Amino acid sequence: MDYKYEKLFEEKVFKDPVHRYIHVRDKVIWDVIGTREFQRLRRIRQLGTTYLVFHGAEHSRFQHSLGVYEIVRRIIDDGFSGREEWNDEERLLTLCAALLHDLGHGPFSHAFEKVFALDHEKYTQAILTGPTEVNAVLRRVSSDFPQKVADVIGKTYPDKLVVSLISSQIDADRMDYLQRDAYYTGVSYGHFDMERILRVMRPAEEQVVIKFSGMHAVEDYIMSRYQMYWQVYFHPVSRSAEVILIKILHRAKHLHNSGYAFAQEPVHFKSFFDQSIELEDYISLDESILLTYFQWWRKENDPVLADLCDRFINRRLFQYAEFEPATEYRKVVELEQLFRKVGIDPEYYLVTDSSSDLPYDFYRPGEENERVPIYLQMASGELRELSRSSEIVDAISGKRRTDHKIYFPEDLLDKKQDDPHINQILKMLRGSEGVDELVD
Amino acid sequence: MDYKYEKLFEEKVFKDPVHRYIHVRDKVIWDVIGTREFQRLRRIRQLGTTYLVFHGAEHSRFQHSLGVYEIVRRIIDDGFSGREEWNDEERLLTLCAALLHDLGHGPFSHAFEKVFALDHEKYTQAILTGPTEVNAVLRRVSSDFPQKVADVIGKTYPDKLVVSLISSQIDADRMDYLQRDAYYTGVSYGHFDMERILRVMRPAEEQVVIKFSGMHAVEDYIMSRYQMYWQVYFHPVSRSAEVILIKILHRAKHLHNSGYAFAQEPVHFKSFFDQSIELEDYISLDESILLTYFQWWRKENDPVLADLCDRFINRRLFQYAEFEPATEYRKVVELEQLFRKVGIDPEYYLVTDSSSDLPYDFYRPGEENERVPIYLQMASGELRELSRSSEIVDAISGKRRTDHKIYFPEDLLDKKQDDPHINQILKMLRGSEGVDELVD
Amino acid sequence: MDYKYEKLFEEKVFKDPVHRYIHVRDKVIWDVIGTREFQRLRRIRQLGTTYLVFHGAEHSRFQHSLGVYEIVRRIIDDGFSGREEWNDEERLLTLCAALLHDLGHGPFSHAFEKVFALDHEKYTQAILTGPTEVNAVLRRVSSDFPQKVADVIGKTYPDKLVVSLISSQIDADRMDYLQRDAYYTGVSYGHFDMERILRVMRPAEEQVVIKFSGMHAVEDYIMSRYQMYWQVYFHPVSRSAEVILIKILHRAKHLHNSGYAFAQEPVHFKSFFDQSIELEDYISLDESILLTYFQWWRKENDPVLADLCDRFINRRLFQYAEFEPATEYRKVVELEQLFRKVGIDPEYYLVTDSSSDLPYDFYRPGEENERVPIYLQMASGELRELSRSSEIVDAISGKRRTDHKIYFPEDLLDKKQDDPHINQILKMLRGSEGVDELVD
Amino acid sequence: MDYKYEKLFEEKVFKDPVHRYIHVRDKVIWDVIGTREFQRLRRIRQLGTTYLVFHGAEHSRFQHSLGVYEIVRRIIDDGFSGREEWNDEERLLTLCAALLHDLGHGPFSHAFEKVFALDHEKYTQAILTGPTEVNAVLRRVSSDFPQKVADVIGKTYPDKLVVSLISSQIDADRMDYLQRDAYYTGVSYGHFDMERILRVMRPAEEQVVIKFSGMHAVEDYIMSRYQMYWQVYFHPVSRSAEVILIKILHRAKHLHNSGYAFAQEPVHFKSFFDQSIELEDYISLDESILLTYFQWWRKENDPVLADLCDRFINRRLFQYAEFEPATEYRKVVELEQLFRKVGIDPEYYLVTDSSSDLPYDFYRPGEENERVPIYLQMASGELRELSRSSEIVDAISGKRRTDHKIYFPEDLLDKKQDDPHINQILKMLRGSEGVDELVD
Repeated sequence: MDYKYEKLFEEKVFKDPVHRYIHVRDKVIWDVIGTREFQRLRRIRQLGTTYLVFHGAEHSRFQHSLGVYEIVRRIIDDGFSGREEWNDEERLLTLCAALLHDLGHGPFSHAFEKVFALDHEKYTQAILTGPTEVNAVLRRVSSDFPQKVADVIGKTYPDKLVVSLISSQIDADRMDYLQRDAYYTGVSYGHFDMERILRVMRPAEEQVVIKFSGMHAVEDYIMSRYQMYWQVYFHPVSRSAEVILIKILHRAKHLHNSGYAFAQEPVHFKSFFDQSIELEDYISLDESILLTYFQWWRKENDPVLADLCDRFINRRLFQYAEFEPATEYRKVVELEQLFRKVGIDPEYYLVTDSSSDLPYDFYRPGEENERVPIYLQMASGELRELSRSSEIVDAISGKRRTDHKIYFPEDLLDKKQDDPHINQILKMLRGSEGVDELVD
Repeated sequence: MDYKYEKLFEEKVFKDPVHRYIHVRDKVIWDVIGTREFQRLRRIRQLGTTYLVFHGAEHSRFQHSLGVYEIVRRIIDDGFSGREEWNDEERLLTLCAALLHDLGHGPFSHAFEKVFALDHEKYTQAILTGPTEVNAVLRRVSSDFPQKVADVIGKTYPDKLVVSLISSQIDADRMDYLQRDAYYTGVSYGHFDMERILRVMRPAEEQVVIKFSGMHAVEDYIMSRYQMYWQVYFHPVSRSAEVILIKILHRAKHLHNSGYAFAQEPVHFKSFFDQSIELEDYISLDESILLTYFQWWRKENDPVLADLCDRFINRRLFQYAEFEPATEYRKVVELEQLFRKVGIDPEYYLVTDSSSDLPYDFYRPGEENERVPIYLQMASGELRELSRSSEIVDAISGKRRTDHKIYFPEDLLDKKQDDPHINQILKMLRGSEGVDELVD
Repeated sequence: MDYKYEKLFEEKVFKDPVHRYIHVRDKVIWDVIGTREFQRLRRIRQLGTTYLVFHGAEHSRFQHSLGVYEIVRRIIDDGFSGREEWNDEERLLTLCAALLHDLGHGPFSHAFEKVFALDHEKYTQAILTGPTEVNAVLRRVSSDFPQKVADVIGKTYPDKLVVSLISSQIDADRMDYLQRDAYYTGVSYGHFDMERILRVMRPAEEQVVIKFSGMHAVEDYIMSRYQMYWQVYFHPVSRSAEVILIKILHRAKHLHNSGYAFAQEPVHFKSFFDQSIELEDYISLDESILLTYFQWWRKENDPVLADLCDRFINRRLFQYAEFEPATEYRKVVELEQLFRKVGIDPEYYLVTDSSSDLPYDFYRPGEENERVPIYLQMASGELRELSRSSEIVDAISGKRRTDHKIYFPEDLLDKKQDDPHINQILKMLRGSEGVDELVD
Repeated sequence: MDYKYEKLFEEKVFKDPVHRYIHVRDKVIWDVIGTREFQRLRRIRQLGTTYLVFHGAEHSRFQHSLGVYEIVRRIIDDGFSGREEWNDEERLLTLCAALLHDLGHGPFSHAFEKVFALDHEKYTQAILTGPTEVNAVLRRVSSDFPQKVADVIGKTYPDKLVVSLISSQIDADRMDYLQRDAYYTGVSYGHFDMERILRVMRPAEEQVVIKFSGMHAVEDYIMSRYQMYWQVYFHPVSRSAEVILIKILHRAKHLHNSGYAFAQEPVHFKSFFDQSIELEDYISLDESILLTYFQWWRKENDPVLADLCDRFINRRLFQYAEFEPATEYRKVVELEQLFRKVGIDPEYYLVTDSSSDLPYDFYRPGEENERVPIYLQMASGELRELSRSSEIVDAISGKRRTDHKIYFPEDLLDKKQDDPHINQILKMLRGSEGVDELVD
């Protein structure tokens, strides 16, 4: 039988706390899940450093990937199948792209990508098309199938409807992570009526659209996303841990490049430091390995590396203060000088960081990162852009919100209280709203 | 102010998916949470290998420990405080014991303990009383406080009521893990009305007791526990992964002891292999480090170690069959011979494993592992053992259930189908009920 | 098009808190829901007087009936359809029987049936086959269709598999009411993994059976049922209200028969009092009407009727005490005499009441109320009765539990404290375990 | 002991699906709950006709009132108690006002008030201060206590902080009904993090305020409210039933006033029709009685009354179409003429209805219905109006949304298809977006 259509003898189900069950009937999907590259996602946390503030958020990209697959499977099998706008020949491709869309994420993705100037989407595509187990499975479908999956994930695949199921302002990726991250952090935001949204999703020529009667469910979804960004994803304590992580990697690279003799050699980072990364080096890395090195480096002779690693492993994070770059730039320069005076290197111990989000936008042709808007399908068949019907979405449409913070080790400063500059530093860094009560 | 009674300026809260919030007001508790030894529990999974069958179960002992603390805090502050049977001087001690009861768990605890003949409770006590950060915090309360915490956890503390809150047939430990493990696996068992149980718990001289009106809630709790054992904790796929883990450690120890030259030296295991473990060696180990080694050992020259590590990391587990030791002992001997004939070492590839549970028992004096029964408190004040009032509990009381399985690598056998002995092996190992549909 | 197969142009959905949505595609089902006799179920509470103790339990038989329909629809459409043991020609009949199985319930069913010696199942059948709107809809399918629906509900239909979906020890009726009653009362019992049970239900020749791998889910269901019976359905406060209700109806009948001149004539009860009930009289009655009369009768001249009605309407219920008929029969006789001495009519104010439940039983041929047991389907196809595999079910199988109480108006007794007999009465009635703390 | 401070011997708890438990310790509260006027709220549905579209919404004002009480109790006892801005002498008054704020609601409140030009708040105050059971209980606290409770509910009580707990843009009333109505309808909107809001509520001089760190929880609450209004409270099918209810009462009043001889005399409505309502008449009425009359009036000789009652009882509702009063006023006049031509009285069968909501507003002095805005309390102690900090709330602040519909009996029109005017009518009434798929 054609591998593309081969079914398992009995359906396999995975128990999932968010979707109850995840159903697998296609042999290809089952085989993809069994590959080494997909199993690696068990060792990459979905939310990076967030577990250091929301202790429940220890879940991996593995389960998120299964969740996105399940949502797409339901959209296709329960909703699209049989409708003329949908070409069922794209089914397996869409399912594979859903399952594999995060395959190239590195350990603590954002921090890691930032330091080594990597792009996880490029690595996803490289793993799909390179000499890997997952490539071998996909090639059995057809020789161009791995590239097609990569194209859907890279948004260059010609069938835009397929692309929109994985990457759009209301895609399966977002629907899974909002619910899953809410479940694991325990926050009450992040919930919306996905069952209803699935019922009102319709295939259209260029993208998935929403039956008009589902507008309120979509509004609710957009509000959930907004809340999750500011309550969870941009939580300053999680960003504090990320700032430290970035500085660890910077320091280790700097030490390596300046010939420092590590007690525990950074063997598995060497090609990253030297910018000569092989695909296998990338695949071999995961968060276990980073945590292992960080524990060992706690005992390195370099005091900065040792201190930063100890902070990360034992959660001795930086404190933070509000910071407004437009008006307070001089303050940072001044603080840097003061830090040097008290003997703390501002390069590693005074860090500004910004978070920014655009909750929804309509189509603005020509702008960078053009966003495909959400369309409502009226009874007449006409498509109408969401913010034209929803006053609430219109009100927030296109409004970017940005938050700036400055991070610093309050404990170090406290220890140097005898230094005459310390008072000045503390005065400049305090007086902000202060830390929210939610801690960990 | 006396450190024992010192309060934080503002209550700290942790968002918790199971208990909504965990509240900390005591400075001692806050300081204990910040120690290196307690933060280490973030890197030890609560359910060991279970995440390989229930993918949601990636949660750590860190959050379980906070949960047990929170339950005990609620029992004391909302229920016991002010009642004459309760001595509020024991409050901080009980809270510390609750928080720290799992401190000595090693990575993948049960497998690890089995191979190296360790006892996690002993290590908990060693960490509490040794030269550690947590000891330093506890000593600030009083010089004998660390030992007292160790005594409560070791069940030798004279106040049996305090001990029973942490270790009895209806303790805070069980109440947290049943609910938490149900939440993270996503199974619908494990739920019971804890709010009601907390309302009906009363302090008594020798132990915590339950007001008679709460009997049905306790019945439900016992049934939940029963279901969780058989549906989750003893799930054969999870045990399959544990069997492999044990065999990896066995093999590595064997290789080390026989002078094998590792490509990646087992530095961090050396003192375990040599049975010369220092406390610091123990504390330094966690699941990240094990997973890191296992990934590296996938490429060792020893085929058995490399294969077993690949199996564990990439979830290529052993298949299993039912097995009845009383009647089928000869079968195992015969299978071992057949395995040798086809060139598969039964020492590592044919493993029998048993699970056994006693859901509830009344007091049987003199028996090993005497169990303190659950007592109901009647309106008259009289205490009555649970199974005397509850027909359902009586029906299962003292009934041990045991399950035996035999594990083997079906894929290896399948590859050797030309060998004349293989058919015989497969015939002997199949024909059982087969694998449940729930997989991962 | 044949009415039997006619589909609605668009599927209709009902939002349901228990099953999320209830789906209707069949025109017949839609038409049945719209009939006067089915809409009447909105005015009959699912749990009778239970809302007087669990204030959330104000839900009607209307929503329960839709829920049973939805469960049966899912069993058939998602599970049975396409399997050879299932005859899809029985689909519409089974759905109609599920939807209509409670059609003949009167207001506060159990009390009402008891007083007037009625049988709701007979009335269900009479409404289905009589000159009613629902009969007119069903007759459009075929002339014998109403009778067939009645036969399924009456358990005389030849296809026992169809019957077992509606009436057996694991039927859709029980699965809906356990979950629904738990949801509305707010108790944490009553939950079990219905999704799993639906996945493992299989059609067999004589009844629905359960795949062996679902045994634990069935155990949990049986325990849920047990808890709901004793925690909710037999709650003594609810039974207290029912006792009063029964006495109201008795008194009104008695007054009517003895020629009492009602201020508010019991027009709508007349045929019930005279035992000359027409079908239309029965259909016309609902709980609104009973409550309306009871409010009016609060002002009748007869002190007993007025008092009982005031008690029911304004929730001034009887107190209760434990009572053991086998050993305490004399006590009741004595109490009756004492009540007469203090001028309280024991006929209306001293009431014994028993509740009894058999949580599960295997087949006992020849016994009254033979129960079809639950069968597990082994991998071999063999059917095995549940209690042979499940130790927990075996432990409770066939064990009937009975509870006896005696109800009396404590407030009336308290008012007569000067009477020398009162002390004796109170002494005889007190000293029991007393009222559980859960009240309303 | 002073009745005001009298406590029950044992705390009483009510099981509540929304708040888990409702706790009563004060004797006054317990006595109030037992009064006839409070028990009457069991016979008034919380959401009027909404159960005809969301079948789960059969819950009463009784449970909502308990819920509001419980929220206020938690705000005071767990949050305010001990803070200097809070005067604990107001505790019992606030609890009573919370419990009793809906006491004067009539059956199907909004429709009933509209037809008879009543104001439920006036009746609440009349019941509190009149010759009632609840007045007798409250008077035992002090002779002016009933009036004080009435003043808090009437918003004229001098302590504005007390008033704001019951009536403001973030009061206990709204927090209970949003969650409760979401629970009973089963919709996924209506959920917000009340636990968090309770944690960040602070007493201030003029009203309850919110700690700044709780801003996002408040945003979410406002969005929930917005969604509930448009998804549930203004659902057109529910409004269709309300339109019919209003027309029934109008018709009955008209018939009564014109001397029509009822088969079933409207005894209990007489004083309403004659505008000579006594307090006892008002208290005696509830939804059971209305439903009882409507069932009887189905058989009246007047065809309009009989038809409308049949529609309401058996859920044969009016269809609806969109309608824009500003531009389509003539259309209505024209339709009225056409209705008359085909022999359908537009007075009862062609009804326009509008819904309108202002989701949040800041303080606009001098405007009718001045709204007290929500204030955030900054770390500095400064109060800042919510929309100044929240972009999302700012975006919707002060934006009123209105929806107009026209209701008509499509079935009647369909029956007259031979009439030449019917086509014209149907053409004018159709072509709108049509009915949402959610029906019942």
